[in-house]
Amino acid sequence: MTFTRFDRYVERHARSFTERLQALCRMPSVAARGTGVRAMAETVEGMMQRAGAGTRSFKLGGGYPIIYGEFGAGHHCFIVYGHYDVQPVGQLGEWTTGPFAAEISDGLLRARGASNSKGDLLARILAIEAYQKTFGKLPVCVRFIVEGEDGLGSPSLQTFAREHAELLRADGCIWDDGYKDTQERLVISLGFKGIAFLELRAHGARTDLHSKWGGIVPNPAWRLVQALATVVSPKGVITIDNFNSHIAPIEPQDAQALKTVTLDEAQLRREFGIDGWVRGMTGRALAKELIFAPTCTICSIHTGHTGAGATTVLPGTAIAHLDFRLVPDLTPARVVELLRAHLDKRGFTDIDINLIAATSVAKSSQDSFVALAAIESAPEAYAQQPVIYPLDPASGPVGAVCGAQQPATPVVSFGISYAGSNPHGPDENIRLDDFLQGIKYFGRVIHHLGQSSAASYAQKKSTLVQLEK
Amino acid sequence: MTFTRFDRYVERHARSFTERLQALCRMPSVAARGTGVRAMAETVEGMMQRAGAGTRSFKLGGGYPIIYGEFGAGHHCFIVYGHYDVQPVGQLGEWTTGPFAAEISDGLLRARGASNSKGDLLARILAIEAYQKTFGKLPVCVRFIVEGEDGLGSPSLQTFAREHAELLRADGCIWDDGYKDTQERLVISLGFKGIAFLELRAHGARTDLHSKWGGIVPNPAWRLVQALATVVSPKGVITIDNFNSHIAPIEPQDAQALKTVTLDEAQLRREFGIDGWVRGMTGRALAKELIFAPTCTICSIHTGHTGAGATTVLPGTAIAHLDFRLVPDLTPARVVELLRAHLDKRGFTDIDINLIAATSVAKSSQDSFVALAAIESAPEAYAQQPVIYPLDPASGPVGAVCGAQQPATPVVSFGISYAGSNPHGPDENIRLDDFLQGIKYFGRVIHHLGQSSAASYAQKKSTLVQLEK
Repeated sequence: MTFTRFDRYVERHARSFTERLQALCRMPSVAARGTGVRAMAETVEGMMQRAGAGTRSFKLGGGYPIIYGEFGAGHHCFIVYGHYDVQPVGQLGEWTTGPFAAEISDGLLRARGASNSKGDLLARILAIEAYQKTFGKLPVCVRFIVEGEDGLGSPSLQTFAREHAELLRADGCIWDDGYKDTQERLVISLGFKGIAFLELRAHGARTDLHSKWGGIVPNPAWRLVQALATVVSPKGVITIDNFNSHIAPIEPQDAQALKTVTLDEAQLRREFGIDGWVRGMTGRALAKELIFAPTCTICSIHTGHTGAGATTVLPGTAIAHLDFRLVPDLTPARVVELLRAHLDKRGFTDIDINLIAATSVAKSSQDSFVALAAIESAPEAYAQQPVIYPLDPASGPVGAVCGAQQPATPVVSFGISYAGSNPHGPDENIRLDDFLQGIKYFGRVIHHLGQSSAASYAQKKSTLVQLEK
Repeated sequence: MTFTRFDRYVERHARSFTERLQALCRMPSVAARGTGVRAMAETVEGMMQRAGAGTRSFKLGGGYPIIYGEFGAGHHCFIVYGHYDVQPVGQLGEWTTGPFAAEISDGLLRARGASNSKGDLLARILAIEAYQKTFGKLPVCVRFIVEGEDGLGSPSLQTFAREHAELLRADGCIWDDGYKDTQERLVISLGFKGIAFLELRAHGARTDLHSKWGGIVPNPAWRLVQALATVVSPKGVITIDNFNSHIAPIEPQDAQALKTVTLDEAQLRREFGIDGWVRGMTGRALAKELIFAPTCTICSIHTGHTGAGATTVLPGTAIAHLDFRLVPDLTPARVVELLRAHLDKRGFTDIDINLIAATSVAKSSQDSFVALAAIESAPEAYAQQPVIYPLDPASGPVGAVCGAQQPATPVVSFGISYAGSNPHGPDENIRLDDFLQGIKYFGRVIHHLGQSSAASYAQKKSTLVQLEK
């Protein structure tokens, strides 16, 4: 069975598919502002229904609804994650056209949300539509989970994952973060780092005091600084006792995949305005650190006078927010436990640690259904090998979705963007060719999932039959 | 010559003096709000003119005027500092009566500014009036320098000190901070610590970044924490290289005076809500640290997301504000120089140090005219020995006023408040008896200055005559 008819269908409908994307992108749905988000949710639900899905809309507390849409049926089931909200538009003057004009020029569609990630959501629904039109019914069950709070930290999705874990029982999950790199190679990531977002708090006097007392009243800012200085070395190495012993060794397949990852170091240095990287790393070592190493980042410190200007006070409280990005097998609870023991051992028992937010690592082996389908379908759709990130250095609600069951659901992530998509900035855009290519690719991924899961089911059944003999 | 007639004059005019204080306290003059401050300046100038002073009003830039008033004449000249602005009133509901009602009950006058420090200003002017009425002319020249920006960090006074240094040429200076302690002893301080208020700044990426880059992009918050951790030890000891070698030994007279200083530790601990003091100090050691030790206080740290809530960013900049309180012979410039060398030696050459504000130590020996006058006049006026603080742990614009000339002008400070005056809080108040006692005391101080400076002049003259022979 070839994809000739499928591809022809996509090409024949290229114009109408593009117009449907423009229509979606013309609906503002900035979660942070609240404008048009609920209308967008209804549109997404209607769109999935027209493509043949059974849908449900979950309203959790005061948040924006989770749109759930189920396509097809089968022994195996796969989750497709998406979100229908978009980032704030930023400075209007920096856009070539309005952020919701969604005009097309030179093969680009510029709009807030085109890349992140209405283009991905629509491409995937259209791929299912095209698949059904050309092959008949889907070979597997596909469950879309589409949220409207990506820009808000996904609170409703996390509630949904806790309250409706049964809907998240699946053989794999496909996320929507991804792009072609500067060498035009499709980037497929096999998961996301976890996160443990902690608050450390040191206590001093009841209130901020006149700093003349600085010599005799304990200063929580000094206390916090002294405690923090034991956590990461001046060279940027995490020095928490026993921290490294909880990090799983890198799997050989992943070490192999890492060799294809290259960072455009010069470009990134220019973009960030930095002279060099931590510990002077470059090349393979730098990529390995980015992908496989846990991080411990001071995100903010709050102590003393926080307004404009400068005031001579002795602070009453000092707070640091630390963000640990986690790799296998570090868990948020383990990080808290190790840090607590580390600080206690050094006499910092007075410093409180609170876990504010946490997401587990979500990682797929290269042998999972979704990893195989994504990796093996890429060469035909993109005419070259993809780049495989064994782990995306970012995190997200993926841990909540894929960790709702044990063992965790394998996850892969890819998308229709490219290196110039600028998903959080002005002139966010996608290339229409990438959009259509993404539809063709997703059709192949679904097909691959159908084949491999059918083979697996047949294999399992024959094993059962043999056992019964 | 005795003070019988002087004291009787004060007692006879007790009611009218009190009414004049009430009138002053009924004029709101909160510098931070701007209401009534200029009217107050005019009132102060008129009040000094009626007492016989030649006055000038200095307007510097957009600030509130400095009122300069000169009384008497003589070979020696002394500065009396005051301020006519008051602190913000805070929560109105916490006041027994309105902050500007200035009503009297149980011998207390409650009003914002009664203690800090309209009561002191008026007591000093009234003492001069009473002195002139009973003794005739003043035995020395007294220059009042009265500002309206105590609550704003005294910017105009600092400009004035630079631009009119000739008016600050004097044989001594009397400041207006002081009170009776919980044992009803008059506190006289022989100066104030200096201050060096520094900004330390570490640099990272051009802007805050997504914290997924935390493992490879330098984090200025970690850099700042690591640098700060070398400046003060976990025990709260300043560990800057060679810092202690620039601290002058304590003079024997000052060490002697320290023995009379006692802190009400239990009360202060309750007020501050702390279990104990730095390094577990108590008693004599605690008082010595408060008075004679330099401090290094982290006043604030600014890095990463500074608004409400918590955000996972990798900060682009990290700033700490450090406040050093200085003792002899530490200077602000020396502190910057030592800290720079200390950080450079440890590889922190990338951290900027900026001196934001500085005031020199202002300190008097116990043999100066003003110290002798204050100390020796106290037993008669207060019927007991005063407590002598060799140095007030606070700082202020005193360094600008007393350091305008070299050698620096000796300074002493005392006032009419008591331990319950609550000068920055609700129900700020003074006891009327303290007010009248303060007038009697100040008359004696002026008289003492006249006698000792006349003796000094006679001595100097006879030395000259002998040299000419």
